[in-house]
Amino acid sequence: MPQSFESATALTPVDGGFTAELDPGWDVGGGILNGGYLLAVAARAAVEASPHAHPVALSASYLRVAAPGPATLTVTAGRAGRTLQHVHVVLADATGPAVTVQVTTATLPDATPDHPVPPPAATPVEDCFSIAEHAHLAPPGMPVPGLSQQVETRLDPLTAGWALGEFSDEPVIRAWLRFADGREPDPLGLVAFTDALPPTSWATGQLGWAPTVQLQTLVRALPAPGWCLVEARGGEASGGWVDEDYRVWDSTGRLVAQSRQLARTAR
Amino acid sequence: MPQSFESATALTPVDGGFTAELDPGWDVGGGILNGGYLLAVAARAAVEASPHAHPVALSASYLRVAAPGPATLTVTAGRAGRTLQHVHVVLADATGPAVTVQVTTATLPDATPDHPVPPPAATPVEDCFSIAEHAHLAPPGMPVPGLSQQVETRLDPLTAGWALGEFSDEPVIRAWLRFADGREPDPLGLVAFTDALPPTSWATGQLGWAPTVQLQTLVRALPAPGWCLVEARGGEASGGWVDEDYRVWDSTGRLVAQSRQLARTAR
Repeated sequence: MPQSFESATALTPVDGGFTAELDPGWDVGGGILNGGYLLAVAARAAVEASPHAHPVALSASYLRVAAPGPATLTVTAGRAGRTLQHVHVVLADATGPAVTVQVTTATLPDATPDHPVPPPAATPVEDCFSIAEHAHLAPPGMPVPGLSQQVETRLDPLTAGWALGEFSDEPVIRAWLRFADGREPDPLGLVAFTDALPPTSWATGQLGWAPTVQLQTLVRALPAPGWCLVEARGGEASGGWVDEDYRVWDSTGRLVAQSRQLARTAR
Repeated sequence: MPQSFESATALTPVDGGFTAELDPGWDVGGGILNGGYLLAVAARAAVEASPHAHPVALSASYLRVAAPGPATLTVTAGRAGRTLQHVHVVLADATGPAVTVQVTTATLPDATPDHPVPPPAATPVEDCFSIAEHAHLAPPGMPVPGLSQQVETRLDPLTAGWALGEFSDEPVIRAWLRFADGREPDPLGLVAFTDALPPTSWATGQLGWAPTVQLQTLVRALPAPGWCLVEARGGEASGGWVDEDYRVWDSTGRLVAQSRQLARTAR
């Protein structure tokens, strides 16, 4: 039974911030904790230190791999305005700082967007396939990520040829996501979802880990209950660097989160 | 004669960082300094403190409007790796911190990109019109930005209807940019260019200042000499928030920088 997202992101208040216990179950393979999970832990620290309930913008620098186990979150909160607050969070494991995050907290809108971004045409969730249930399809040498036990990930067959050794020209991966523990999506969950898919370079056959260097996540609205549709699209790759864009739509088809990351290309 | 970009971003080393003199000429109207200019000053502090020559990823939180005049840049550099270094910069004016920036420094690639992002079809620069020379076309009540004296900005007539009171359905503004002082584009200049256009909401008739809350800039390659083509595209606007994407191509048509910002919608 996987540990819940709630307990995997639980915080204990201490002077200057919080302590946490980073859950080894949220790895992307090889014991490396998922960047979205770490960002969600930092986001929770920011909102717990703020009068505003939601993280609306987050920028993270990944200094090095964070080890599972005890961690501290040092929180420096700026002036709390009526509309928003800026909060700086440093997540450190036993060795020292691993992730630094700038979080802007505010209250997410219910308003209907102007210029809404429609979801892409995706295969219905019942015709998609589960990463966890098809672990034997993982690329050779790729360990099954613990993440896929925590977040149910139903890959759209249209962008999952790579799992069968059929590579695409397009660095795009699309999937339906929900928490395995039954938790409905919420702003902290969306933060985790904005870095929850395999590297988009897998779609084109460049398998391997693509470590995130910087990640910016924007949470745009409160999500409706149900599956979220998540699409990751690789941009330009050159000189060892690649950018990836994520978009997340809720079950009503509303864009609820987006992210952009700069990563090192898969090795 | 406008002050040069070089002198407007000049730094003096002091204990723990640098001092600078923020140039009042880089305003966006009403004495408010441009966010891209402030980011370039912080980027310069990061690279001067780093063994790596270029800013490749920058995430800024704009805490409040920074006043022109004396400023300090407090620099905290992480461990310098062979490939990259993370550097944290706090830009403060006489009143206190105004912008916090996480900068990743590295060496930009010469490599030809995979999946290159082609430039949009733009009007040739000689058929575009200068913001500075057409100040009388500015929306009523909009002061002429000093920025337009520092950065030659030739608006593409295809996305400049707003300057003539003819508004579009699409929140897109495109222009050719170069420094007025004759400086060729370089990574620091690209940083400034990724926030150098009017708010994209102007295109659709919502005039007014749209203050940036968080801005992420990625510099992807060393730019060739000559004009840069810059396109800003607004995303979803709802509940008082809007996201904007910038892309910058050099004179050879190569994508050299990109940015995404979350801003408050124009008032």
